[in-house]
Parts: sequence; structure tokens; C-alpha cells
Amino acid sequence: MSFEPINKKLVDDIKEKLGIDPPNASIREMKKLVDDIEEKAGIRFLKMEFGIPGLKASPLGVEGMVDKIKDNSFTHIYPPFDGIPELKSEAARFVKLFMGIDVPPSSCIPTVGAMQGCFIAIAIAGRSFSQKDTILFLDPGFPVNKIQTRVLGLKSDSLDLYENRGEKLLKSLDERLSRNDVGGILFSSPNNPSWVILSEEELKGIADLCRKYDCLPIEDLAYFGMDFRRDYSLPGQEPFQPTIARYADLYISIISSSKVFSFAGERIGITVISPKMYGTKRSNLKQYFNTQDLGHAFIHGGVYPTTSGVPQSSQWGLYSLLKAVNESKINLLSLAREYQKRAKAMKKIFLDNGFYLVYNNDLGEPLADGFYFTVAYPGLNSDELVNELLYYGISAISLKITGSSRKDGIRACVSLIDETMFDDLGQRVKKFNLDHNKK
Amino acid sequence: MSFEPINKKLVDDIKEKLGIDPPNASIREMKKLVDDIEEKAGIRFLKMEFGIPGLKASPLGVEGMVDKIKDNSFTHIYPPFDGIPELKSEAARFVKLFMGIDVPPSSCIPTVGAMQGCFIAIAIAGRSFSQKDTILFLDPGFPVNKIQTRVLGLKSDSLDLYENRGEKLLKSLDERLSRNDVGGILFSSPNNPSWVILSEEELKGIADLCRKYDCLPIEDLAYFGMDFRRDYSLPGQEPFQPTIARYADLYISIISSSKVFSFAGERIGITVISPKMYGTKRSNLKQYFNTQDLGHAFIHGGVYPTTSGVPQSSQWGLYSLLKAVNESKINLLSLAREYQKRAKAMKKIFLDNGFYLVYNNDLGEPLADGFYFTVAYPGLNSDELVNELLYYGISAISLKITGSSRKDGIRACVSLIDETMFDDLGQRVKKFNLDHNKK
Repeated sequence: MSFEPINKKLVDDIKEKLGIDPPNASIREMKKLVDDIEEKAGIRFLKMEFGIPGLKASPLGVEGMVDKIKDNSFTHIYPPFDGIPELKSEAARFVKLFMGIDVPPSSCIPTVGAMQGCFIAIAIAGRSFSQKDTILFLDPGFPVNKIQTRVLGLKSDSLDLYENRGEKLLKSLDERLSRNDVGGILFSSPNNPSWVILSEEELKGIADLCRKYDCLPIEDLAYFGMDFRRDYSLPGQEPFQPTIARYADLYISIISSSKVFSFAGERIGITVISPKMYGTKRSNLKQYFNTQDLGHAFIHGGVYPTTSGVPQSSQWGLYSLLKAVNESKINLLSLAREYQKRAKAMKKIFLDNGFYLVYNNDLGEPLADGFYFTVAYPGLNSDELVNELLYYGISAISLKITGSSRKDGIRACVSLIDETMFDDLGQRVKKFNLDHNKK
Repeated sequence: MSFEPINKKLVDDIKEKLGIDPPNASIREMKKLVDDIEEKAGIRFLKMEFGIPGLKASPLGVEGMVDKIKDNSFTHIYPPFDGIPELKSEAARFVKLFMGIDVPPSSCIPTVGAMQGCFIAIAIAGRSFSQKDTILFLDPGFPVNKIQTRVLGLKSDSLDLYENRGEKLLKSLDERLSRNDVGGILFSSPNNPSWVILSEEELKGIADLCRKYDCLPIEDLAYFGMDFRRDYSLPGQEPFQPTIARYADLYISIISSSKVFSFAGERIGITVISPKMYGTKRSNLKQYFNTQDLGHAFIHGGVYPTTSGVPQSSQWGLYSLLKAVNESKINLLSLAREYQKRAKAMKKIFLDNGFYLVYNNDLGEPLADGFYFTVAYPGLNSDELVNELLYYGISAISLKITGSSRKDGIRACVSLIDETMFDDLGQRVKKFNLDHNKK
């Protein structure tokens, strides 16, 4: 079965009618465009633009939630701002078993998704010192973190991991931080979308520089454990998830449940703040959060005035999931390994057909297979590639939206492409290559 | 049975040891203090400082939640940022039936509590015009709204409802708004804690002034329907809950589920934004929210970067509760009427024993009985009264924390004082009066 591209005029007419320029479109606009093309062209798109979990959560989460709420003894009670004690304890145990770090339950704060954790972390980092109102991002990254910074009236700056790894990363960071305007450094590892993973040496170096320049590292563990080159899924056994918490005195490390537990619908993550955040004073915080204490500011100046805590039902759900993995009732990565398989297969399809990986080198090691990867096609820049792929029924976002300095390539998410679609993807990518190779 | 006050030295020693000054204490510090005194003195406190629901929610909320989530088909799916369609439709129906206002489902946006709704509303109101970065509060009010303003780096100002009602309120507002630095006016009605209720004329006047000065009214309906002088509980029948929505083109009206449905544990409210918010542009918003559109800014610049929406389980819970009251399966105020009974009885106890109401006049009408009231004792200022009541095992917060300009009086919340405690309260207040009358 060979694939015939969609009629060019049909696609271009829809783009024009909707006034949407795909490389600059929001994900929501992209959805509208794709929906319209699918309907008019009678074709199913292969959607790689959404970073949403494609797998059902373990029933243990829902069962735990239902068990705890069905007697109706919680729904009328405000959750404690810093989380229900049962979840906090189970989270501290999780941090010990899977990250190898000792923190007390008071350091583990449920938030309404990693999103709320990042939002508050940015607010605190950017307001600890009056002159340090810039958040530095190790890019590429999750575009919404930059919107969070803007909503708070803070500034952003960026260092690209393509150019900066290992010693070079630390040297560039040192230079940048020496300007003394950076209050926090935000990074995700595995990195969304390049899937490069910061090494222990890099994490230690970042921690040292944060100490040197009095700046707060914010680690977004949105893809906890998903460096599948190692097995981070065995409780209490090395290797442990690499984390800045091993090296820094002051840090915020944010664990999402959306991907690793496919629990995105319940909007709950655990934000781990270092024990030393309690008792560390920053006088500049007072005017914003009514306290100088970094830990207090997170809870009483952050969680409280934004949402007054996390819904009871979500907290009991995550409690049940953490308990299950802590006690080896389910394997931490039993769901997420599916993404590894998909990434492996999808990357092969692209690489076999003339594409190349943009972020292709992880400190000399081959990249891990995970939730995202980045690919480009010779001779096409990001904008051209996004546009051209549409004619082949493939949607993705431009790398430039992720803050990358690269001018080529797209971000590809594997979550909505299951194995039944691999043949289809192969046909389309093959045809794409045939058509573009000729030119 | 007569009441003997707690040993003064015992109380003072605990205050000193904890370093807590009751009139300036946070509610959390107050809890710590009261817990300690209870333990050392072997006495149960009558707690009037907490504004938390004391009644169990209708089981329909939990049943609805369980029904929808038990097949595990939602927990892995990100909720739409603007809410699940079923809840949005049921909310629009609720607004029509209980407020008498026509809005489309797109105007009804679930938020993680009224708290998140207020936070985003303040952010948008304070950033619509660069020079209008002040939020004006009709005080007294909920202290956390002022912290929200500070977290966002915005300014606050205050007009006290004690001095300003009716024509005088509108005149004072007009004067204040003419300085052109106010982006939004936030008020709750019924007012926390004075329980005065803005009249239709006042609401219309506020709407007119907001139009005149291009400023956004933010209405916090935390105590929906709880002006028990009228019956707002019959769906589709007048009288309807008074609301700014009847008069303003641009408004944000925030409906909490915490008190009226006792659903505080699930952290969900409905924020109603006027249909005209969509399509109204404020160029100053762009730098903060990545859009100029007021409606878009609320959802994509507000809900998205703070929490990415509201947990699925909470949304299905509130959906079930709204459906039940919309279809008259339960009466909207069946729970909240209990607070009316308590307020009536508790106010009588205080008034019979030498206390007086601080906010005592609602445009010539007697005050309604609701969740809060404000009382003072002759010859004692707010600080003295808070301190003196502690010896009688009664805890409350000073009116000054609520932004009141009054120097006398406390805020009393009825939610944790049930009828089994009325005798006890009576004994203590009587003894208080005996002891202080003598002086």
C-alpha cells in the first residue's frame, strides 16, 4: 500500500481560511487545523504535536480514590495547604526509594499538577532578591514555563543544551550567572523535547553554581524515570533517578504524575522542596508572600493564594499509586515503557527515510528513547518541515516554539502513535522522502 | 453550671513561649496557640476563627464522582483548560436558574476553588492597562485576596463599607476611580465578614462606574444565596441571587462550592466571565498572557499556566451537585440554612450579654444571619477583645486583619459552633460580661 499526499490546494485553502500559520500556531490552533483537514480530506492524521498521555492509568489510583471518598468524610474538609499527611509520608518514602534522597514529609508538597509546582517555584525564585528577576531556562523546553514567568511579571533568558553540555554548560552558566540577575534556573531532565539527560556531573555543577550565585535550581521531573538506558524502576535499588537534590542545599524538584502514572486528569504532582528551604530567609519575599521564609512562602504565599491546596480526591488517588509502587505492587515504569518502544520504532522510521535527529548526542552516549524526540529533514528549515509534513497527514510543532536556537526540526511526541499506526507512518514518511529527495 | 475563666498566667505563658500575639496571629498560629491552651488547661475551645464548612456535603457529589471515574476512563486525560463540557453546560443552567442571567457554557469556567478564580481575575484586572495596577477592595474582606494581589506584584487599596453604602458608596467609588489607577474592584456579597449585602442599586452603580472608568468588577460569591432574608433557593423563580452580571458588560463573578455545597475538600468553583470578555482586547495583556483577549487570557494565560485545569474527579462531583439543584433533587440551601440558625442564636447570646454588632446596618434593614458576623464589646478595642476572649476559651480573629477601618470588634464564624455548644457559649459570654462590666 502506498500513500498519496493530501491535495496541496485543499490544505493551503484551509490554512488560509482559518488564518493559521502552522509553524507559529498554538497547539490548540493546530488541533483546529488538523480537524478541518481530516474532515475535508477524509484522512486520519498521525498526531505528534500533543504531549498527552495515551495510556490508561492503573486502576489502583481510582480504586484508592473511591475507597477513601465513598464514605463522604473528606469532600467537605479543606485539604491542608501543604497536603494530607498520608500522601506527604508516602511521597517522602517514594523520594527515598526511587531517588535515593532523604527528605521529611514536610518537604513533599502536593500541587495541582507539576504546573502549579513550577508556577510557584518560578514566583519564589524570581522574587527572592529584588535584582534577580530573571529565570534562566536550559532550552529547549516546555513553552508554558515561559508564559508562567510572564504572568508573574518576571524575565526569561535561555541557554541552549545543543551548544552547551558538560564542562561547556557549566562554563556558560557561570558566565551567565555572574551578571547577578538570575533568581532561578529551570530545567527538565529527561529534557522535553530533546530527551537529553543531564549527567550527575552536570547536576553537581549546576548545584555548585547555584550556591555560588545564590540562585534556586528548579528541576522539572515531568518524565520521572524515563531514561530507559538505565532501570530506575526498582524501589530502594540503584540506580536512582538523577536529581539536583543530591547536590544542592536549596532546590525545588517537581515530580509529575501525568506521564509516569498517566494520571494527568487528576492534576496532581509532588513538589519536593529541600528541608533547608524552611528556615532560609530572603527579605525580598516578604512584600510578595507575607513571609521571608522560602519554605513558608511556597506553601502560605504560593499554594494557599492560588488554589488553597489540592483536591482531596486527587490526593488520595496519588497516595494509592505511590503506595503501590513503593510496595512493589506495580512497577513504576510498567506504563511508560510503552513510550520507549514507540520512540524506538518511530525514530527508526524517520532515520531510515532521510531524516536526522536534531539533538542527537547525549554526552557521547546514544539518546534514550522516551516521550519525545526531535527530527529534521535536510534542506528544510523548521517552518518548512512543519508545513510540508501536513500534506502527508503528519502534525507536529516547530522546535522554535520550544525555545530551541536550532532553525531545523520538529518536536515529535510518541504518545498518540501506537503500534497499529507504525505501518501508516512508514508509508507516509517514505513517500515524503521520495518526494523531497527528488528535488 | 457556671464557667470559670482559664488561669490568666497559664494562657499568657503559652503566648509568650510560642511568641504569638493573638490579634496579629495568622489563623494557623492561632490554631497552634489554641491547641496548646486546650491541652494545658483541659478545656475545649469554642472556635470562631475558622471559615471552614462544618457540615458534610451531599452524598450526591461523591456518588456522581464515583460513578464517572470508576471505569477509569478519565484519570489519564488532561481536562480541557476551560472545563469539561458537561460541567460548563450544567453551570450555565445554574446561572440561569439561580441568578436569572443568560450566559453560554463558554462563559462558565471551572477553577481550582473560587481561590484560583479570584487569583486569575486579579491578575487580568491589574494588567489590562499599564497604569491601572491597583485592585480596589470593598472592605472588610477575605485577607487572602490581598496576598494574591501582592504575589502578582500589584497594588491594593480599600474602601470600607462601614462608611460607604448606597449613594455614598458610589460617590466615594467615583472619586477613587477618577484617579485612573484602578484596574479591578473586588467585593464579596454577602460580605465576609460583615454580612452586609450590596443592593441592586449599588450593584448597578458599581457596574456603571466600571464602564465609565474601564475597570473590571470582580464579584466573589463565596456565600451564594446566603442572604436568608430572601429565599434564593428555588430554581427558575424570583428572587434571584443579586449579581453584578445583571448590570455590567465586562465582569467576573465567582461562585464557590465550598460553603453552599460544603464541597471545600474538592477545591472547585465556577468562574463566570461575561460573554463580552471574549473578543474584548486589552493590548497591555499581551506581554503577560500571550494574548490581548480578556476571555482568552483568563483561560490560556490564567488557568493553563497555573494548574492546567481542574481535576476530572472534582469536575464530575460539582457537575452532579449542580445537576441535583438544577433539577430540584436537593434544595440549594438545605445545608447552608443551618448557618442561619446558628448565627441567629449566637448573635443573640452576644447581644444579650453586653456586646454590640460592629457592622449593624444593611441600608436600614436588619442584617441577615449567615456564616459570619462582627461583634465588639464596649471599652475594648479589637486587640484587647481577641486577647480577653481567649481566657474564656473563645477564639476569633481581629477585624483589622480583614481590612476593616474599625478599631473595635472581631470576626465570628458560626461554622464550628453547633447547637450542642450554645449553652457553653452562653455561660462563657455571660461570665465575660460579668467580669468586664464590673471594671
